[in-house]
Amino acid sequence: MGESLSGGGRDGRPATSADIPTIGVGMLGYGFMGRAHSSALRTIRHMTWPPPLIPELVSIAGRTEDAVAAAADEFGFAEHVTDWRELVADPRIGLFDNTGPNSVHAAPSIAAAETGKHVVCEKPLGRTADESYEAWQRVGATGVKHMCAFNYRFVPAVRLARELIASEELGEILHFRGVYLQDWLVDTSVANLWRLDKTVAGSGALGDLGAHVIDLAHYLVGEIASVAGAVRTFTPVRDGTEVDVDDAFAATVEFSEGALGTIEASRFCAGRKNGLRFEINGTAGSLAFNLERLNELELSEGAAGFRTILVTDPGHPFLRHWWPAGHVLGWEHTFVHELHHLLTAIRDDDQVGPHGATFEDGYRAAEVCDAIVRSADGSGRVPVSYRESAPARRAAG
Amino acid sequence: MGESLSGGGRDGRPATSADIPTIGVGMLGYGFMGRAHSSALRTIRHMTWPPPLIPELVSIAGRTEDAVAAAADEFGFAEHVTDWRELVADPRIGLFDNTGPNSVHAAPSIAAAETGKHVVCEKPLGRTADESYEAWQRVGATGVKHMCAFNYRFVPAVRLARELIASEELGEILHFRGVYLQDWLVDTSVANLWRLDKTVAGSGALGDLGAHVIDLAHYLVGEIASVAGAVRTFTPVRDGTEVDVDDAFAATVEFSEGALGTIEASRFCAGRKNGLRFEINGTAGSLAFNLERLNELELSEGAAGFRTILVTDPGHPFLRHWWPAGHVLGWEHTFVHELHHLLTAIRDDDQVGPHGATFEDGYRAAEVCDAIVRSADGSGRVPVSYRESAPARRAAG
Amino acid sequence: MGESLSGGGRDGRPATSADIPTIGVGMLGYGFMGRAHSSALRTIRHMTWPPPLIPELVSIAGRTEDAVAAAADEFGFAEHVTDWRELVADPRIGLFDNTGPNSVHAAPSIAAAETGKHVVCEKPLGRTADESYEAWQRVGATGVKHMCAFNYRFVPAVRLARELIASEELGEILHFRGVYLQDWLVDTSVANLWRLDKTVAGSGALGDLGAHVIDLAHYLVGEIASVAGAVRTFTPVRDGTEVDVDDAFAATVEFSEGALGTIEASRFCAGRKNGLRFEINGTAGSLAFNLERLNELELSEGAAGFRTILVTDPGHPFLRHWWPAGHVLGWEHTFVHELHHLLTAIRDDDQVGPHGATFEDGYRAAEVCDAIVRSADGSGRVPVSYRESAPARRAAG
Amino acid sequence: MGESLSGGGRDGRPATSADIPTIGVGMLGYGFMGRAHSSALRTIRHMTWPPPLIPELVSIAGRTEDAVAAAADEFGFAEHVTDWRELVADPRIGLFDNTGPNSVHAAPSIAAAETGKHVVCEKPLGRTADESYEAWQRVGATGVKHMCAFNYRFVPAVRLARELIASEELGEILHFRGVYLQDWLVDTSVANLWRLDKTVAGSGALGDLGAHVIDLAHYLVGEIASVAGAVRTFTPVRDGTEVDVDDAFAATVEFSEGALGTIEASRFCAGRKNGLRFEINGTAGSLAFNLERLNELELSEGAAGFRTILVTDPGHPFLRHWWPAGHVLGWEHTFVHELHHLLTAIRDDDQVGPHGATFEDGYRAAEVCDAIVRSADGSGRVPVSYRESAPARRAAG
Repeated sequence: MGESLSGGGRDGRPATSADIPTIGVGMLGYGFMGRAHSSALRTIRHMTWPPPLIPELVSIAGRTEDAVAAAADEFGFAEHVTDWRELVADPRIGLFDNTGPNSVHAAPSIAAAETGKHVVCEKPLGRTADESYEAWQRVGATGVKHMCAFNYRFVPAVRLARELIASEELGEILHFRGVYLQDWLVDTSVANLWRLDKTVAGSGALGDLGAHVIDLAHYLVGEIASVAGAVRTFTPVRDGTEVDVDDAFAATVEFSEGALGTIEASRFCAGRKNGLRFEINGTAGSLAFNLERLNELELSEGAAGFRTILVTDPGHPFLRHWWPAGHVLGWEHTFVHELHHLLTAIRDDDQVGPHGATFEDGYRAAEVCDAIVRSADGSGRVPVSYRESAPARRAAG
Repeated sequence: MGESLSGGGRDGRPATSADIPTIGVGMLGYGFMGRAHSSALRTIRHMTWPPPLIPELVSIAGRTEDAVAAAADEFGFAEHVTDWRELVADPRIGLFDNTGPNSVHAAPSIAAAETGKHVVCEKPLGRTADESYEAWQRVGATGVKHMCAFNYRFVPAVRLARELIASEELGEILHFRGVYLQDWLVDTSVANLWRLDKTVAGSGALGDLGAHVIDLAHYLVGEIASVAGAVRTFTPVRDGTEVDVDDAFAATVEFSEGALGTIEASRFCAGRKNGLRFEINGTAGSLAFNLERLNELELSEGAAGFRTILVTDPGHPFLRHWWPAGHVLGWEHTFVHELHHLLTAIRDDDQVGPHGATFEDGYRAAEVCDAIVRSADGSGRVPVSYRESAPARRAAG
Repeated sequence: MGESLSGGGRDGRPATSADIPTIGVGMLGYGFMGRAHSSALRTIRHMTWPPPLIPELVSIAGRTEDAVAAAADEFGFAEHVTDWRELVADPRIGLFDNTGPNSVHAAPSIAAAETGKHVVCEKPLGRTADESYEAWQRVGATGVKHMCAFNYRFVPAVRLARELIASEELGEILHFRGVYLQDWLVDTSVANLWRLDKTVAGSGALGDLGAHVIDLAHYLVGEIASVAGAVRTFTPVRDGTEVDVDDAFAATVEFSEGALGTIEASRFCAGRKNGLRFEINGTAGSLAFNLERLNELELSEGAAGFRTILVTDPGHPFLRHWWPAGHVLGWEHTFVHELHHLLTAIRDDDQVGPHGATFEDGYRAAEVCDAIVRSADGSGRVPVSYRESAPARRAAG
Repeated sequence: MGESLSGGGRDGRPATSADIPTIGVGMLGYGFMGRAHSSALRTIRHMTWPPPLIPELVSIAGRTEDAVAAAADEFGFAEHVTDWRELVADPRIGLFDNTGPNSVHAAPSIAAAETGKHVVCEKPLGRTADESYEAWQRVGATGVKHMCAFNYRFVPAVRLARELIASEELGEILHFRGVYLQDWLVDTSVANLWRLDKTVAGSGALGDLGAHVIDLAHYLVGEIASVAGAVRTFTPVRDGTEVDVDDAFAATVEFSEGALGTIEASRFCAGRKNGLRFEINGTAGSLAFNLERLNELELSEGAAGFRTILVTDPGHPFLRHWWPAGHVLGWEHTFVHELHHLLTAIRDDDQVGPHGATFEDGYRAAEVCDAIVRSADGSGRVPVSYRESAPARRAAG
């Protein structure tokens, strides 16, 4: 497709949108993530000017005819189908965007890639490391571009964090502590969601929230070498149905390069709505981030104390697409940056990584998740045995 | 001593300071903690009016004659000695205040108690659980009042947290996450301190900082049943001398009642000066605390979001001693509250616990510290084994 | 147009986008605001489902042919023109969206209204109260819907503030303190902008930033009855050209209902990027807002202390259009809410006010701005005359 | 007194407390401020080692015999009297510490100075500028050291702010905005306090809170040249008695050097307990302070964004007296710093200013307060006259 750019505008930029190649998009899933991806694909056309490619929303797939028809109309897809295999077979589609539940991440993504479509798939890549590995191997073998949608890599403050670490502003990294805290399961009436069903979701807070933290740890600090964790299901029955996924987990992690970390996620932290937070400490400085204040990055140069950087300057990562300094972005913009990155890689036949998460990254996060589950099941914990005093002695003090 | 109060003032309050019994104090150690305890003992006399007992600063012990003489003058002790055994033998002394290095916590405290003196000892109670157990057993057997100086129980916001939990404002407790982050070892020129010498200190961040977090976990949430942790010494040699204590540790903990926790401490977190922070989540609400803002407690009632309570109202814990609402306290005031609590227990022959930490509490924290070390040495960690792709496949993505 | 809805979908909702009437939009201006309005108009179609009307971007006007042609392509307008009068004359256009510089706010808006087009015009409505009054009078006389784009009324947290005040959660309002602080003029190399030219802009920080604060004061607290202020131009010459607008102003204001306020704006506050902040105190509580954290509202119920409400719940104002709780919005979304409100008023032939700012509101803000200028020029200030001491006496102390 | 130091210890430091001269203190008043000053005077002896002079608490004066006797015992004064003239006549007293209500600030301070005693007097120096001027003139004429107890100059963060400004870190100062917000009068049952009685207090929020802000403006930015303000009494009757002082005021101020400012204080800001806040913007940076977080100073170097400096390092102002980095101070410590400063000036026969506020500074603040009252009474405000639309036209929009 890249060659069609050669006839473009001044300074190598396309003169008009007519000079910009298009790419047909087929989407699987029309829930929360389908809505977010669709919005981003429409926005790229106008706000990342000139866009690398102009997405055309060809068709969207879902099992329920009425609902998917309504979603197509609402999201701006020209057509809808009730079987994702139709998307895979559709020659107009160059990018398969998989926003379905976790149980339909692997197989449709593989099928799409094997017909030569580029693929972006929501996280977690699979319900298990095995499934994720299979997805990576088979998609990777096709040579298409593949991305696992760890969108928080595309928060401007997170990218800035990466740049600061890469330029050794923090020195050698010693600590990573990351949490992802939400509170929607504190309401015991919440029930019957696919996210609480292991068959569909694979895991609970671990794959849904923890995977994001694990991916950011990997992106910002490096490879996780070992874990020791614990998991909890606080409300094992909801509305008469067993909940077979975790509500929360916590783990200590060791990085290959020596840093020590903690990773935790929970859906039971009252008052925390979307509390993805991390702090990184190095020998030369520290930084801290909180998704609930996604426009801010806190940086301590040396031990000087934390400065709040409002990451909204046009010179900050991704901000050239947006507004003058000080005009904050929202959560959905991460998808614009992510899909813009993917479209650029497709246009230029460039690598998705290291800034975009590939299926390999999706798989590697899944290995860490699985290791946490194994460590929680295993014999690694050390019980604390408190010695008792003789009864007479306990009266004192 | 309590009977001397009976002739006191109106409404059962002493009419004047002449009606208030005194208690002779002998102190071991004249460093940072000696200075803090001395200040508090002087302050109690005037600011916690009427004080339960009036401390008289009888004598202070230290090995270096010139230095301890100067400290006695500066701190307001009438006399000084160079052997703590003289304090133990001094009949004028009713309270032995042990602020020496960790290696002289156990033996002098035991000796003082065995001559019938009440004892307050800085934390950690001993260098190991064994040493701490011995101290508890032998001091406990004497019947004197004993306190391990976990002073952060006496931060007004922490006591308020305890009261909120006790009154079930948070419901059932599900999560505890506590860290204690400092940055003074980021400076690699720091060296040759007793705190970095295992023979004297027993451990590093673990016993110095971690013990505080562990004690607060115990005080606020309950007994810790198991741990899985990791420790680090980032700078194993300083100024040519081996550092044989930990610079940092992290652990997941499980509480007997089911809550899941993380506990971490480090002296290598650039920009964090005295960052003892905890967050507790329950089924009905959450709270959060940060020692760097010790006058504040953040409380989310249900999922409503966090309210910053400025814990400075006269009706808040301990604040009746101080100023009108809004006039903040400092770190040193925790010692005033702590020692006031101990003097009250002595006067009334009342329990030091559950609000004051006893030697039993000091011992129990030591067991958790030792268990973290054992878990870090052991085989409990699960390595993450990432499967590789065939080389040809890795080019994609 | 409303009648075309009658054949719509189930439950009175349109079955599909085919059931939803369209409205042709003509835009004047393609700068910062033109880009923001265009983005919102495109977003309404898909994200405020079902949209009240579907905007069709018919044509955009600007003086420079090449630039406006590129903007039309980028923004998604079907056509472009170089004279706004062509938009006024275009029968396909039902809504005239005026995002040009302040000097072309009044006349084109009046002309569009007088041909029967609904009008939305950026703030300030005019360069002076007189010009704004003329705009209001002539547009108001036509019977079209008119809106002055005070978009910060459409921040969810601001609307929530309004609702809390309306429901008397704060009791009687006693204080309003509002500032709008930016720092882009601290850079002395910034020059030659229309915003610094009185002929085009009318005023500086006053009409650009101050007008927002004044409108919010009016929206949230009520009518401003009197002012006393001062203005400053800190850098009167930039790049050899005189700056004839204010860089900053400050004023005390009195509200008709008795509240006391301060209003201030400056482009010279280093470190403040888009610091529109206000605090409102009433007899029963307080609230505080900061545009740099636009997803948050701080509320003190009574004197209990401030709770940070993350205004992202689907039940919060405007949030039904967006995402699950905790997924923050950005600055640009205020325009989606604002233009959605206007389109709804057009569809339903309903009032734009009181939630939308009308041209009357635009005029009233201009009167306050003008009064501040008059008070700053006038004799209202009281000099402080410090009496001197005899020289001999000054040596002491 | 200074010569007695010459026989002192090594390195010019006194060897022991026996080498340090003492100074007898007589105190007028035993309320909130008397308690705070007493505490500081006792603390100086031990915590500012070696103290410049050792304060001896000779005698305290108050009108009610029983109460002042109890206060003497509680505060540590050797004697008490019921007529402050006895203090003035007492040759053992070298420092007269005036903590009485505002109505007894001037005359006793003058009398004490005229008998050769150094004087520290609580703020405001007098109930009016005239009274304050008289106090300054007569005390200044005696040659004693005099201090008006604007203790917030002695917050470490405030002194650091002063140092940063003096070293031109902020460049030329353009803006000062200061507020002092409390909420204790929101409770309408509060009544019958001397602070609400003009005869005793002189004014309300203006002299009590506003004077602090005015003094800090003067200390940090410079002379205030003109003001324009407004005052309010929201609850003119409490418990059947007229309140004849202001509950709140707001003013814009112009500094002699050109900066523009706002100053405001209120006792009616629900949720604000002791909210003395200021922000200062200069051409090269900004800083912000909040007394409720008195250990923190926020600094933006250039436009980089605000860094939170935890002002607790031993190298920070005043902190050499206290603890290792990170151990926060409380409100009361400002008095230790302030009185230590005064004692040092007395010992060295040095100036109290510019860091300590003298009676001249107390007088100058009073002139600004009086000017605000005059401006509020005067004709300086500009009414906002909104023009009406013809009735028919108002229906639209």
